[in-house]
This record gives sequence, structure tokens and C-alpha cells, in this order.
Amino acid sequence: MTGKVYTGVFPIAPTTFDERGDLDLDGQRQVIDFLIDAEVDGICILANYSEQFALTDDERETLMTTILEHAAGRVPIIVTTTHYSTRIAAERSRRAQEAGAAMVMLMPPYHGTTLRAEEAGVAEYFRQVADAIDLPIMVQDAPMSGTVLSAPFLAQLAAEIPQLAYFKVESAGAAGKLRELIRLAGDRIDGPFDGEEGITLMADLDAGATGTMPSAMIPEVLGEVVRLFLGGERESAMALYDRHLPLINFENRQCNLRATKVLMEEGGIIGSAATRHPFLPLHPDTRTGLLDLARRVDPLILRWAR
Amino acid sequence: MTGKVYTGVFPIAPTTFDERGDLDLDGQRQVIDFLIDAEVDGICILANYSEQFALTDDERETLMTTILEHAAGRVPIIVTTTHYSTRIAAERSRRAQEAGAAMVMLMPPYHGTTLRAEEAGVAEYFRQVADAIDLPIMVQDAPMSGTVLSAPFLAQLAAEIPQLAYFKVESAGAAGKLRELIRLAGDRIDGPFDGEEGITLMADLDAGATGTMPSAMIPEVLGEVVRLFLGGERESAMALYDRHLPLINFENRQCNLRATKVLMEEGGIIGSAATRHPFLPLHPDTRTGLLDLARRVDPLILRWAR
Repeated sequence: MTGKVYTGVFPIAPTTFDERGDLDLDGQRQVIDFLIDAEVDGICILANYSEQFALTDDERETLMTTILEHAAGRVPIIVTTTHYSTRIAAERSRRAQEAGAAMVMLMPPYHGTTLRAEEAGVAEYFRQVADAIDLPIMVQDAPMSGTVLSAPFLAQLAAEIPQLAYFKVESAGAAGKLRELIRLAGDRIDGPFDGEEGITLMADLDAGATGTMPSAMIPEVLGEVVRLFLGGERESAMALYDRHLPLINFENRQCNLRATKVLMEEGGIIGSAATRHPFLPLHPDTRTGLLDLARRVDPLILRWAR
Repeated sequence: MTGKVYTGVFPIAPTTFDERGDLDLDGQRQVIDFLIDAEVDGICILANYSEQFALTDDERETLMTTILEHAAGRVPIIVTTTHYSTRIAAERSRRAQEAGAAMVMLMPPYHGTTLRAEEAGVAEYFRQVADAIDLPIMVQDAPMSGTVLSAPFLAQLAAEIPQLAYFKVESAGAAGKLRELIRLAGDRIDGPFDGEEGITLMADLDAGATGTMPSAMIPEVLGEVVRLFLGGERESAMALYDRHLPLINFENRQCNLRATKVLMEEGGIIGSAATRHPFLPLHPDTRTGLLDLARRVDPLILRWAR
């Protein structure tokens, strides 16, 4: 258990580039303002959906300070600080705390296809990060890391390291793992979170999730889904979710991190949907399919800047 | 084909840390002097055996400039510049050229378990790196990248991009791939290279390799093996190699990148064999096994600094 308990919707802000591939910091500030106007409970930055893997260390620092300064405490900001090296992950986390982050999020250590850590190494990694900061920590259980984090192991980590109070589960069988984790860890956990663009949100809420970290595509909708659910209105939550599921499904399976940027470009929030090579732009037909599904539900992302 | 053709032994310099985990630049210079005294044909830095995955961008820059300044042209230096982002890989390569590198080495783009590029993306990645520099480029075909690079694809890359003249193959079936690559690409390739601590060196030489990029453990031996082989003395090369194979095998299968540092610490070249967490130190029994096998062949690494 840590201090304030965060629940609700904490979308991931995409990292915005101009057509040449440089950081677009004006666009980045627009993204933050859009999310705050969408009444999110907080924002996560430098996550995988933010293309953290395509940034230099200097760019990470620039983005973090720019966003934290611009948010200026209006909403809590979660900064992703994963690195293969425990020392560097701890140092990144310390910098995030200094810069004003409300929380840090980390995957277990990984590099490429072949470097992973065993459970003892993963535990020590999170212990050293926790020792470096006073903030709560969200453990990100994502396929990117290629590391199996069992529910019993996560519950044990939560018991040993009080700062590890949030767990975003987006590996296969997320709902089952969240349910088991909550059973094992009980109130040692402040925030069992849903992830992966919200594609398993209803099952994860049913399993006990109290928050979601989706993309920034329809934050006003997913925030309302979580509020309705936590307020006991499961049928209304489900009806609202189901109406948007074709779009969420198309994002998750056809577009991934390009979906939000395309809609932000289309809605005039940012100037370019560019990603960095070798991450390729959406095929024009896929873009058309995304825009068609989005227009059917008229999301804020297409209206906010107009 | 590029200008000067490099053959022989190009060991990977380990990155040296002190017991606290800080860079040990004095030790780093000692490592370079040891390798030059071992009469290597060149040195590779910031490779996987150098724990490139456990460094910040600033540390990479510090190591590169320190080593290039210290080597001061005594031997050619190959700098590893892989990054998932094509743009950042090109920029790292440009910096390496400015700093005085003789060549850059890159794996195809990868990140974690899930991010890879298709062949068109890999080709474009190397094309953009080549456009950014005038140096020859070594393509590193290693399991770390989780990317299958077929011999026909590599031959096609070599044909399209003249700077891609060196190919270090250390994926499964290395000798077969080198043979096929040489058959397909002929003299478009300056350097088919062996890698992976030299564990497949004899088969790779038989297949046509003209150089090896092993660790810095027994560079004086592996350099002599390649020279003997290329000079037509295959039996002598094999006898020398076979005498050291128990040590090479123990390095490759029991120790990996920790082997060289342990022997350098034991030989007084560096002060500490430390690696960065979560990469763990060798178990004491494994260390004993390594030292026993090393002492049987009395390598320069144990004698040079004494």
C-alpha cells in the first residue's frame, strides 16, 4: 500500500515526430492538453506505445521534462523507466522522481531475443529501483519483455516491496492472472491494471482491475467505462465498451501504436502521424478502415482540435 | 568491395566496470594495450560481448572516444552501432566515423521479444546507415537480434550496398551460411567473418571465412590460427585450435562474456571482473573451472600484466 490510490484511465501518450523524424514538442504538448480535456485520471509516457524503443536517452529526457513541465501537476504522470541494466533503470527512475513523476512503470529487464533474468534477478531489479525512489511503482507484465511473471511471483514481489503497488497485466490470460494476483496479494496491491489498448478491459474489470492503461485513442470513453463499472453500473459500462469494441479491436489487431497518431493527425491535434523507421506507417487501406470505424463513434480525438 | 581488406583476428574488447559498477576507463585502456600487444588485426568495441545492452548513450560515447583516442590508429577499431531506430543507428554510425572508427558493425533492428523488421525494412535500415557514412559496414548475424537473415538475402544486400562488405555470421549453421554467402556474393564481399567466441572457427575457415571476431580471451592464439590457415597450413592451424578448444568451449557454453573479464582480473589487466546486474558474476566453481582450463594453455591474458 502506498499513499494516494490511483484508479481509472491512464492513457499512454504517443511520442510525436514531425515528417523528418524529429521530436515534435508542440504536438506533444497538444497531446497532453487533449488528454487532460478528456478528463483522464493520469497519463503514462515513454511506454512501448510511445515508441520508447526508438528514442535516444537525450530524447527521453527532453520528452519527460517537456511533458512534466507542461502538465504542471494537472494530472499525475507515470514515466516508463525500463532498461536492461538495473543500475540504469534505477537512475532513470530517480530522474523521473526529480522531474515530478507521480509513479514509474517498468517491465522486467530484457534485451533482444536472448537476454532475460531469472526470478531472483527480476526481484533484485525491482528492489534496487524501489530503493532509489519514494514513488509507487507499476510493474508492467507485457509480451515485449519475453519474461514470464507468474501471479504467485508478482504477489511475493508486492509483499516484499511495498512500493510495488500497481500491476499492469497485458500478457496472455490477463484476466486470469489479475484475478489470481488479487486473491494472493489482497490489499498489498493498490492498483491491478488492465493494459493492451483495453482489448481485454471488461474481462479485466470483472477480474478486479481498478484501472486501465490504454492508448490515447478514446480516453473519454474508456474512463467512463471504468467509472461506470466501479460505480456498480456494469451493464452500462459493457454497453458503452461494446459500442467501441470494433474500433478498439481494429487498433489492437490492425494498427497498434499507429492508430492514435493517425486519428490525432486526422483530428488536427498533431501535424504528423510519423513513426520512426523501421516501424512503418499504416497502409492507406488500413488507415481508411481505422477512420471509418472511428467516425462511426465520433470520438473526442477527431473533434477536440477542430 | 571497399578499400583496404581486413582479415585476421578482431577481438571484442570487454567493457570494464569497477566494483561499484562505474566505467573503469583506466582498465579499458589496459585492455586495448593488451590486445595490441597480442598483435591483433583490429578491435571491436561496444558489441554484445562488451555488454552494450547495459550502457547509457553517454557511456557509449565516453567509451568510444576514450578507446579511439587511446588506440590512436595503432589498429583499426570497429564500433558497434546497432539501435532499433534506423535514424539512431545511422547517427551512431556517423559519430563513430567522426571519432575515427575504421568500420561499424550492426545487427538488424530489434527490440525485446516482439519488435523485428521484415526484409525490406532490414535492407532500408542498412541502406540509410550506409548513406550516413563512408566506412565499410559489418553485418552481424547473431541470435540476439532474433532475425533470420538468409544467405541469399545477405548476398542481395551486399550487391545493392557496396559498403556492406563484411559479414559476421554467428547464427546456427554459421559455416553453411558463410559457404552459401560466398558462393552467391563472390568478391562483392571483402570479409566473411567467424564470430561467437570462435567456437565454430575451424568449420568457418573451411567454409571460406577470412577473419574472426572472438572474445579478447586468447587473441594471440586465434590470430595465429587464422594466419596459419590462410597461409595454407591447415593442419598446424587445427592442432593449435584444438589445443585451446576446451577453454573456448568452456567460455562459450559456461561463461560467455564473463570469461574474458575473469581472466583479465586474474592476470592483473583490470581491477574487477564486475558485470552489471542483472547479468550475474560467474559462480565460484565455474570460475575455478575456467581458470584451470586457462592455466593449462598459459595464455597471454594471464601473463601480459605480470
